[in-house]
Amino acid sequence: MRDIGGSKLGGILYSAHTKYGTMPSDRGRRNSVAAIARTAEVAKSAGVDLVLEVVNRFETNLLNTTAQGLEFIAATGSDHVRLHLDTFHMNIEEANPAAAIRLAGDKLGYFHIGESNRGYLGDGVIDFAGIFDALLDIGYERDVTFESFSGAVVDESLSLACAIWRDTWTESLPLARHAKAFIDLKVDEAARRRATNARP
Amino acid sequence: MRDIGGSKLGGILYSAHTKYGTMPSDRGRRNSVAAIARTAEVAKSAGVDLVLEVVNRFETNLLNTTAQGLEFIAATGSDHVRLHLDTFHMNIEEANPAAAIRLAGDKLGYFHIGESNRGYLGDGVIDFAGIFDALLDIGYERDVTFESFSGAVVDESLSLACAIWRDTWTESLPLARHAKAFIDLKVDEAARRRATNARP
Repeated sequence: MRDIGGSKLGGILYSAHTKYGTMPSDRGRRNSVAAIARTAEVAKSAGVDLVLEVVNRFETNLLNTTAQGLEFIAATGSDHVRLHLDTFHMNIEEANPAAAIRLAGDKLGYFHIGESNRGYLGDGVIDFAGIFDALLDIGYERDVTFESFSGAVVDESLSLACAIWRDTWTESLPLARHAKAFIDLKVDEAARRRATNARP
Repeated sequence: MRDIGGSKLGGILYSAHTKYGTMPSDRGRRNSVAAIARTAEVAKSAGVDLVLEVVNRFETNLLNTTAQGLEFIAATGSDHVRLHLDTFHMNIEEANPAAAIRLAGDKLGYFHIGESNRGYLGDGVIDFAGIFDALLDIGYERDVTFESFSGAVVDESLSLACAIWRDTWTESLPLARHAKAFIDLKVDEAARRRATNARP
């Protein structure tokens, strides 16, 4: 990562990216914590941030919620590991996605904006107003990345792992333009709500 | 089903209940349509309703949305096949769950109420007000069943298939009491909204 000029290493680094068929074991979790702790030291010395993606139950059996992620980070004993949260996964797992973002606070190191069906933003059930309010509340200033899937452009093995059986879109550019406008609008709205609330 | 005194046969009858690793094939879909069409004739003569559960992408690759389910039913050519919808799955797949219920209309034959994390109702993100408004709008009078999972009481193989790695509850009775009160309350609220709107 350092050698190709990258500054962040993220994703499901702590387990396989798969639908597990067994419960997580204590031994497996300890191995994972130890591996991430060692990797964090190397990453720190290389100037690369390490962020662990918390994903839904069908893509790992280890870290499905922010609370589990924070406990895992504490177990590594490292100050160089943060969480990568994603609204698609939070929509399945978190009792309250906005509260989960506030719980993560400064331990939130990377953020994925994705719709509940992984298609166009707004074409699903996610309450993005609450999400952006929470990001402003914690003073989040790291990356916000839009993620969406279509078999038309995504690598086949990743599409199969993510269970993309139907394409909600095929053209990347209109999708990306819409996502940028959507995110800019939602950030503006959240900032205005914040300013309105602050008025005496 | 007839011989044990049952009146409805439902679930993922049209494919395996699994995280598929391949795209659905045209041949597989045709086989499935033909098998359900034959089963529907037998079910009809036995006085048993046949309802197909539409589930999320990680539990089948064939019927993930109401629209797909309705198309599948049309392909069977049978008037004896209906859909079984479930709010947990709809929260992942439907662009608009309430609109999907209205789209199903009289083809909705069975309904599962489940929270987004499969735990206590209210302990997640699902907009149940919109769900119950839609059920009243289509005049739905068939079964409404609460579904929730915990490794403490659910069969192990089903828990693993459904990826239940953490238990959000362990005692069935308080869970069921809460669900009954929650559903009664939401139905009352929806009925009152409907009456309020109808006032001239």
